[in-house]
Amino acid sequence: MSEPQPLPVPGVRLGTAQAGIKRVGQRDLVVMELAAGSRCAAVFTRNRFCAAPVHVAREHLAAGSPRWLLINTGNANAGTGEAGMRDARACCQALAQQVGVAPEAVLPFSTGVIGEPLPVDRIVAGLPDAVAALSEAGWQEAGWGILTTDTRPKLASATVQLAGGAVTLTGMAKGSGMIRPNMATMLAFVATDADIPQATLQGLLGEAVAQSFNRVTVDGDTSTNDACTLVATGHSGVALAGEGDRERLASALTDLCVTLARAIARDGEGATRLINVVVEGAQAVAEAERVAFTVAESPLVKTALFAADPNWGRILAAVGRAGIDDLDVAGVTIDLDDYRIAEQGGRAAGYDEAEASRRIQGSEVTIRIGLGRGAAAATVWTCDFSYDYVRINAEYRT
Amino acid sequence: MSEPQPLPVPGVRLGTAQAGIKRVGQRDLVVMELAAGSRCAAVFTRNRFCAAPVHVAREHLAAGSPRWLLINTGNANAGTGEAGMRDARACCQALAQQVGVAPEAVLPFSTGVIGEPLPVDRIVAGLPDAVAALSEAGWQEAGWGILTTDTRPKLASATVQLAGGAVTLTGMAKGSGMIRPNMATMLAFVATDADIPQATLQGLLGEAVAQSFNRVTVDGDTSTNDACTLVATGHSGVALAGEGDRERLASALTDLCVTLARAIARDGEGATRLINVVVEGAQAVAEAERVAFTVAESPLVKTALFAADPNWGRILAAVGRAGIDDLDVAGVTIDLDDYRIAEQGGRAAGYDEAEASRRIQGSEVTIRIGLGRGAAAATVWTCDFSYDYVRINAEYRT
Repeated sequence: MSEPQPLPVPGVRLGTAQAGIKRVGQRDLVVMELAAGSRCAAVFTRNRFCAAPVHVAREHLAAGSPRWLLINTGNANAGTGEAGMRDARACCQALAQQVGVAPEAVLPFSTGVIGEPLPVDRIVAGLPDAVAALSEAGWQEAGWGILTTDTRPKLASATVQLAGGAVTLTGMAKGSGMIRPNMATMLAFVATDADIPQATLQGLLGEAVAQSFNRVTVDGDTSTNDACTLVATGHSGVALAGEGDRERLASALTDLCVTLARAIARDGEGATRLINVVVEGAQAVAEAERVAFTVAESPLVKTALFAADPNWGRILAAVGRAGIDDLDVAGVTIDLDDYRIAEQGGRAAGYDEAEASRRIQGSEVTIRIGLGRGAAAATVWTCDFSYDYVRINAEYRT
Repeated sequence: MSEPQPLPVPGVRLGTAQAGIKRVGQRDLVVMELAAGSRCAAVFTRNRFCAAPVHVAREHLAAGSPRWLLINTGNANAGTGEAGMRDARACCQALAQQVGVAPEAVLPFSTGVIGEPLPVDRIVAGLPDAVAALSEAGWQEAGWGILTTDTRPKLASATVQLAGGAVTLTGMAKGSGMIRPNMATMLAFVATDADIPQATLQGLLGEAVAQSFNRVTVDGDTSTNDACTLVATGHSGVALAGEGDRERLASALTDLCVTLARAIARDGEGATRLINVVVEGAQAVAEAERVAFTVAESPLVKTALFAADPNWGRILAAVGRAGIDDLDVAGVTIDLDDYRIAEQGGRAAGYDEAEASRRIQGSEVTIRIGLGRGAAAATVWTCDFSYDYVRINAEYRT
């Protein structure tokens, strides 16, 4: 995903500014304007210590139709108590006044350091620049403007052919550490110009998130600020014309979210490889997910992958502790890409270490685990665990 | 725990040898002789991929009274299928022949690399040296002989005054990585000369392990080889004379196991600090344990502690994702030692970063979390997460 050119979504304009929240010279403030009549669905973190902007965004979403999203990076406004709530509301108020809408029409999103007071003055001072920059072509800039420890923007677009005509889907995401989303990822904003009723929109978002952002993990740490929105402006004039259209849009939306989720894993803190953990032959999807997450979050598996060491014993040990009490270990298989490395409770017959090692030298690795218990499957995306993960997180506030 | 002098346990002799399983010049083979009439209790890993020696030790334990423990490091004999079972039995057979007991009187224990064939020939060739070295004073040498990536032996002793006289408790443990024991730790061997019936012995061991080895985590990875045994030789001639004696012995045994468990966390792979995660005010012990493990296994918390960064936001985020759906975040408090850093969902009033940082500079740190929901508590021991954890685990097999 090196600087892709995302498709504009008619009815959505984005403006990015440098407000001085992060270091000088870095984009850190984004406003997203939704045309009148747009609908907006959202999912938020399930962390009990959710951030002030999550509380305020939920309130404002319940109050009516959002017209503006206000996103800052550099400060999460989390763990900030009542002052944090006042600060989030003050930022919404300032943008609302400037553009002439009610404060409830603004949804706030923050990401960055936890526990520091939000620099409201800098955000408010940066708003005119952000509003002046508004453009339907603003996705690329905005993709940069929402990053924290990410090294590159994460953007994706698709055109979906529905019965009534073509619609556009474009989305951006950020996230690199504290990534184990639970009902939403760090921050992701997706928009379409299709005309979609509110309830359908929320349903589509929930389904897509369950199969994408909720299956990515960098370090197992669910953030306090996770949020994902899906906006439908209706500006294409194309509505969903039945179950076939819904399926086509749902499928394109899920694919787009998977692309963004994989981009998050690939850009995980310190990552040198994207890891696909595919679990098949489970009795239920939840069982497949549990095994996949256990493997994907094992520090021993992740450090071995950093070293390009096909240490199947660590994968096998992680499968063994994933909580399936009646697992028949003789039925479990482990492949690296299409190369069988473990079966019958041990190393595969004819296993060749050099051959196995070749499968994990590249920038993307697939671990395929067969449980031999049923037909359910799930894929979880993660990254390897390097010295740089420790460096980034040991030095984050210094 | 720098080379403590453990107390001998009458009726237990230990012999250590260099069998060449690890690098040349390293102690890697230990035999432990239990006097006739000794009783032995044991708990084993709940990892579904448990190692061949775990299967064989369980079988032999069920078959009768063990007289010998045979422990090798350098090779876990795990993920080795049917050949691994044959190898474990062959080692038991060799020792049994040499010392004139039935093979079922030998319990095998292995630790080290997963998935490599056990070097049976070297183990068998090393047995005469180990047997020749047998001594009641052999604990110190044996403590070295069972280590893998550990940097120091872990030994502890206590004298317990019972109604009928004094008895001795001595134990040793090993473990540094793949440490999140589930019903037992990596390897731990405890012995006493008290006279204790088998059922009581197993009960005492289960209670002690639940409060010690089952509350330590280095990396969340439950091993395939975890095992802990408790031997009672009866050689003191002192039996348990009632509930008071049982309580005294249980308390001393738990203390000894906690000492060994803390030594494992302190010597965790790459560790620079021992971390005590104390959770209080929970509605149930299981709830306190869940929160404590979530904090203790958070890579973000552990890297911050490596950097001596009092990043309370990461602790708070971990508490928030620990699965307590009705947690009242306003009631949660976080202290570093006795210094309040978070309360009311945010930073504590009067919080001073320099003051907080001073509490985590040392070799031992206590994070104290108050949930404000009840009277249950639990402590989990872990360590920080350093560059060396990545180095050790990226280079383990190279």
